[in-house]
Amino acid sequence: MQNITIETITKEYDVHMGSNIIQEALSLYKEQLLSADQIVIIADRTVANLHINKLVTPLQTITNGRIKVYEVPPGESCKTIETFYDCHSFLLNENCSRKSVLFAFGGGACGDLTGFVASTFMRGIPFYQIPTTILAHDSAVGGKTAINHSQGKNMIGSFYQPEAVFYDISLLSTLPENEVRSGMAEVIKHALISNQQWVNELFEVQDFSTLTTSNLQEYLCKGIVVKAEIVKGDEFEHGSRKFLNFGHTYGHAIENTIGYGHITHGEAVMIGMVYALMLSEELTELESGFARKFFLHALKLGYTFDAILTKTYEELFEVMIRDKKASHGDLHFVLLNKVGDPISKIISKEQGHKMDKQLKNWVREESI
Amino acid sequence: MQNITIETITKEYDVHMGSNIIQEALSLYKEQLLSADQIVIIADRTVANLHINKLVTPLQTITNGRIKVYEVPPGESCKTIETFYDCHSFLLNENCSRKSVLFAFGGGACGDLTGFVASTFMRGIPFYQIPTTILAHDSAVGGKTAINHSQGKNMIGSFYQPEAVFYDISLLSTLPENEVRSGMAEVIKHALISNQQWVNELFEVQDFSTLTTSNLQEYLCKGIVVKAEIVKGDEFEHGSRKFLNFGHTYGHAIENTIGYGHITHGEAVMIGMVYALMLSEELTELESGFARKFFLHALKLGYTFDAILTKTYEELFEVMIRDKKASHGDLHFVLLNKVGDPISKIISKEQGHKMDKQLKNWVREESI
Repeated sequence: MQNITIETITKEYDVHMGSNIIQEALSLYKEQLLSADQIVIIADRTVANLHINKLVTPLQTITNGRIKVYEVPPGESCKTIETFYDCHSFLLNENCSRKSVLFAFGGGACGDLTGFVASTFMRGIPFYQIPTTILAHDSAVGGKTAINHSQGKNMIGSFYQPEAVFYDISLLSTLPENEVRSGMAEVIKHALISNQQWVNELFEVQDFSTLTTSNLQEYLCKGIVVKAEIVKGDEFEHGSRKFLNFGHTYGHAIENTIGYGHITHGEAVMIGMVYALMLSEELTELESGFARKFFLHALKLGYTFDAILTKTYEELFEVMIRDKKASHGDLHFVLLNKVGDPISKIISKEQGHKMDKQLKNWVREESI
Repeated sequence: MQNITIETITKEYDVHMGSNIIQEALSLYKEQLLSADQIVIIADRTVANLHINKLVTPLQTITNGRIKVYEVPPGESCKTIETFYDCHSFLLNENCSRKSVLFAFGGGACGDLTGFVASTFMRGIPFYQIPTTILAHDSAVGGKTAINHSQGKNMIGSFYQPEAVFYDISLLSTLPENEVRSGMAEVIKHALISNQQWVNELFEVQDFSTLTTSNLQEYLCKGIVVKAEIVKGDEFEHGSRKFLNFGHTYGHAIENTIGYGHITHGEAVMIGMVYALMLSEELTELESGFARKFFLHALKLGYTFDAILTKTYEELFEVMIRDKKASHGDLHFVLLNKVGDPISKIISKEQGHKMDKQLKNWVREESI
């Protein structure tokens, strides 16, 4: 079992990682678990159907069986105000108190929801995260919790750290292809904003199906370390934490206008990263041709970009301007000076429009 | 203008108090207000109708007029998940960002709601509180924010501190009698848990209508200091902060079963305090006869207790056991060893039942 310590101002906690490590990891927290008056798992329904016993069984062994499971709709569709309220109802019906403990069992969305429920139930109770997707390596570190508003993603939330994260790599074997692409997009993002050599390595991966468990664990670990270093310096996103939003401004706009559930988060971020790299070539010192090379490699890995052809720039701009990173009516983008060297820039509506046209041209050419 | 500094682990901020002090107090925060991209007041509709210009006009003067007002239902009825979401919708429609600032303009309920909206909008933006009731002297200090769940009061919330509190005593002159009683109940609570001499003084008040503005300011100031001292030592309610819940366990159960809006918070707390004093006489060293004396004085001040005759103990118990202070199925009550000396005790269901009967007998005798 590999352990990575995450340091934040408000809390220090560990990410435990490896294949089939849940029982071993849980035993480290036996004392807190035994003192809990209720233990509730909030689980993504799809993941629960496949794997819930991998968590329930060891939890029952350790605590003598007081485990309750509340299943929520799969993926991003759980991050609604209604499901948020339903989770509170479930906890109240089960006589949960401030001494109760929550577990998030699912992908990033389930973690975001559960974390927000934990941070607000009776003004805050402890929670653990068991991410079950590659993508969730990103959201499981850093304490951002949230649900969506019909007018924007992650608009309602809080900063709230888990007690620990248990990352069982064996759970990832059942991920569908689009979820692998989604998660690997965030891995690639962590490489792009931190490390040229790692990016070179990733360019050598031509097909995600060839990734071994040990490759995956290595990448996830590297990604978590990149994120943890940044979060340590800037927990509340006043400065460098913004760099983690690389690819997310345009990406969120795509995700939001296409509709959550129709495109995965990471696939939208991949589109946003190509867009941000194109802006970077124009506005920073990023080497000319890098965005194009990256775009073609993404296509080879199975990422698709056709979604943007169905949206006008005006539609995307409307969402981007409401982005949490926007202020005073400007678009704030994270760009790359070069690989491993991110920078925050203000982009005018017109600059954004020009690049939107150019990317759409690339996509149209490739789909002929 | 009187200033009281509130110290918490996460933040230090001031309560500014006096008659017509809003403009003067606002000017101390001019820099932050000018750097905000949007300023939104979330206002209790009833209070807004009477007084909104007392806040809007000076804010416009200082910021050159970018003030938006969102009116919410009066009193406790604003603390719903629906109004919470509507506030977020309003903020998003007004293009608010992380650089926006909120003001709460109303009683404690409006402050609780606005604080919770501020703590969750894009994971947290700054807010100021302008309490407009006596009762709100309690909730304006300590950073507890919350909305209600249909199964319990303040079940969904967070700990989140305001930037500052502006307490304009002149706004209190339009309070209806029941709101004066409601607020004075919390003043009396602060006296009971802290200071014998102050309790003696308060016993001399036979009629709230004789209170002068300067009396009121003195009491509010004293109450805030009591609360601030306790919050300073225990921001997240692991220990002594529980003492502030004196009268609230039974009180919340009354409020919850009668229905918010049918009895004011403080009037319910007054009933809860009599109940807790009766339990204290039985279970601590509190002098015999004090609860009865207190009960009779409360009747003289216009507090009514008839509400409890409409509720069975079972109904009240069901709510008490779901209280945030309950755990492992026990009732946790704050009692008084003597005036000024609170203590936390576990009460059995039967002990609670006995006292419920006794208080109902007292109430029946008095209403003959």
